[in-house]
Amino acid sequence: MINILQPPASFPAVEHERRIKVLLKTLRREKFDGAIIASEVARFYYTGFKASSGLLLVDVRGGEARFLTDFRYLPAAKRGIPFVACADIKRAPETGKILAKLTTSWKRVAIEHVLPHAQLVALQKPLDHVAEWVDFTPIASAQRAVKSPREQKAVRAAVAANDSVFSTIAKDLFSGLTEWSVRSGVRMVMNMLGEGEAFDTIAAFGANAAECHHFSDATRLAKGRAVLLDFGVKRDHYCSDLTRTLCLGKPTSALADVHAAVLRANRAAAAKIRPGMTGAEADAIARGVLEKAGYGKAFGHGLGHGIGLEVHESPSLSSTSKTILEPGHIVTIEPGVYLPGSLGVRIEDVALITEKGCEILSTAPRELIL
Amino acid sequence: MINILQPPASFPAVEHERRIKVLLKTLRREKFDGAIIASEVARFYYTGFKASSGLLLVDVRGGEARFLTDFRYLPAAKRGIPFVACADIKRAPETGKILAKLTTSWKRVAIEHVLPHAQLVALQKPLDHVAEWVDFTPIASAQRAVKSPREQKAVRAAVAANDSVFSTIAKDLFSGLTEWSVRSGVRMVMNMLGEGEAFDTIAAFGANAAECHHFSDATRLAKGRAVLLDFGVKRDHYCSDLTRTLCLGKPTSALADVHAAVLRANRAAAAKIRPGMTGAEADAIARGVLEKAGYGKAFGHGLGHGIGLEVHESPSLSSTSKTILEPGHIVTIEPGVYLPGSLGVRIEDVALITEKGCEILSTAPRELIL
Repeated sequence: MINILQPPASFPAVEHERRIKVLLKTLRREKFDGAIIASEVARFYYTGFKASSGLLLVDVRGGEARFLTDFRYLPAAKRGIPFVACADIKRAPETGKILAKLTTSWKRVAIEHVLPHAQLVALQKPLDHVAEWVDFTPIASAQRAVKSPREQKAVRAAVAANDSVFSTIAKDLFSGLTEWSVRSGVRMVMNMLGEGEAFDTIAAFGANAAECHHFSDATRLAKGRAVLLDFGVKRDHYCSDLTRTLCLGKPTSALADVHAAVLRANRAAAAKIRPGMTGAEADAIARGVLEKAGYGKAFGHGLGHGIGLEVHESPSLSSTSKTILEPGHIVTIEPGVYLPGSLGVRIEDVALITEKGCEILSTAPRELIL
Repeated sequence: MINILQPPASFPAVEHERRIKVLLKTLRREKFDGAIIASEVARFYYTGFKASSGLLLVDVRGGEARFLTDFRYLPAAKRGIPFVACADIKRAPETGKILAKLTTSWKRVAIEHVLPHAQLVALQKPLDHVAEWVDFTPIASAQRAVKSPREQKAVRAAVAANDSVFSTIAKDLFSGLTEWSVRSGVRMVMNMLGEGEAFDTIAAFGANAAECHHFSDATRLAKGRAVLLDFGVKRDHYCSDLTRTLCLGKPTSALADVHAAVLRANRAAAAKIRPGMTGAEADAIARGVLEKAGYGKAFGHGLGHGIGLEVHESPSLSSTSKTILEPGHIVTIEPGVYLPGSLGVRIEDVALITEKGCEILSTAPRELIL
């Protein structure tokens, strides 16, 4: 698929219907009367419909959902969400009255605490019949973390496209290129092979690679020094994420040593991560390798994060994460070592948790010198 | 500037220093002890430093600001914000202890209500010495709404680049093109002439133009029907926004009639908007023209919005906006008429409020047939 010619593919409606059914089951089990789903990503997850505004009301007793949006999106919503009733919602203050009417019997209600505070308050205020508000974010996060077969296929395609971006760019690097021009090249290819970047592309050379979120500038690529590239293309709405650290010419011995240690940490995690483990246990595998190599303190972030419709989602792989890994989770594995003023190395893959372990989806070569 | 070769330009540090001084004056006048600034856009506005996480603490008594960020950004922050002390902030739960220590004498504190609810609560919780929390968003919005000469120059450059995108694309349209391919072409040119799109590009043909936020699909461009293009390139971090409605071949009489009415509404607003007016009074100028033409009910959104670092910011031009327009405000003027199932027309320019009226910055031709 070349993005310039083909729009992103949609999932069949049955996929979204199923997600709402699973959600209804969870809400019923946890004694909710309903949920108000307002964030753009959660609305898209449950409906497959893209809109900058709207509310999905999930009513547990009625066993159904209703999508409310304003005139700008209503005709498209009716076509796009055939499995849910769609209704017009006037802008504030009418919104509150309509909401109150539709939720009049609701006492215990789930709502996302990731919403902007002002929006949360505006939604809650007219609903004074609600006795208990509970954060919906953990419920949605846990559901979204386990990817369906259709979603796994989408992430695989995004990861494969991202591997193609890497192979297209990596072979054209030469000394003297600026970080900015490499970043621009990566972005261009991502706009060809997918729907552009899932997050700000990082191209960091030499000591800049020690800043793990360096904003690209006019620094030039120099032989023997680190070339860290971190980017992710979006494809059919799903994200990918890949980091490779390269070197042109003979690397300094410090760079070669750090790269070897980070690669060992990456490979150890890939070999040992399995369902049933906590995020903290997964993190500890790579951290142990880097500690043994003397780089424990230089690995200042967690091992990885879930990835899907958003580039950062549940589960987290970090020293404080108690989430238990399950088959269908898709996570990044990205150990890194950062030596300020000198160099930085990160090697990041995307991995699918399987029944027995994990499958590394990223295939781009991990070597320092290609 | 070709974005592929040159990174976005930064403003001189003195511009950000001045913004903090103005903010300190406002906070003092409004009897605040301090402000906690956490949103990415507000941090960038006051520091010129891009980072996905960090906190800017503004202490009124001390008359100074302090930027807190974690190890990932700290070295770059120290280089990038020379006019503010930068300090390391550990991740939670240490964050709370550090914050409490630095704000121990603060009683009345400004904090943004646009923050995610969970983040707001996490910031407030460890600070139980604070007696009063006030929404910082209106304070920041009012300050950001009035653009400095340097900002006006940046928006002018973004608008000029956007006009170039339009002239590049408009002359290459032909019947049979899909919405998606036109959208892709617009995005490609925006990636050349600036830092990509400020919002999802809209290309909507025929009846799709009646959905004012249509998501582009495989619909083909047909002669005589509406071709609505709405896009904005980002350049040096500032946004632009332009909508034009075109037709290839002889337009239907309905399309010609609606376009003429929307153009009259656009031109009337451009001629009459001036400082001292409220946003509602500005909106009423265009609305009156469309009501007289019999299209009042088909103009379902407000006349426009402020634009700057974000594509939608203060002030709003809508029937409920009480904000008084001031010289230095930059707004869009975008009347539209939407006839579901048939056609839609919107004509949008960017305007700078001047001492006596407003200056239209957009120069792309507004005709239906080019």
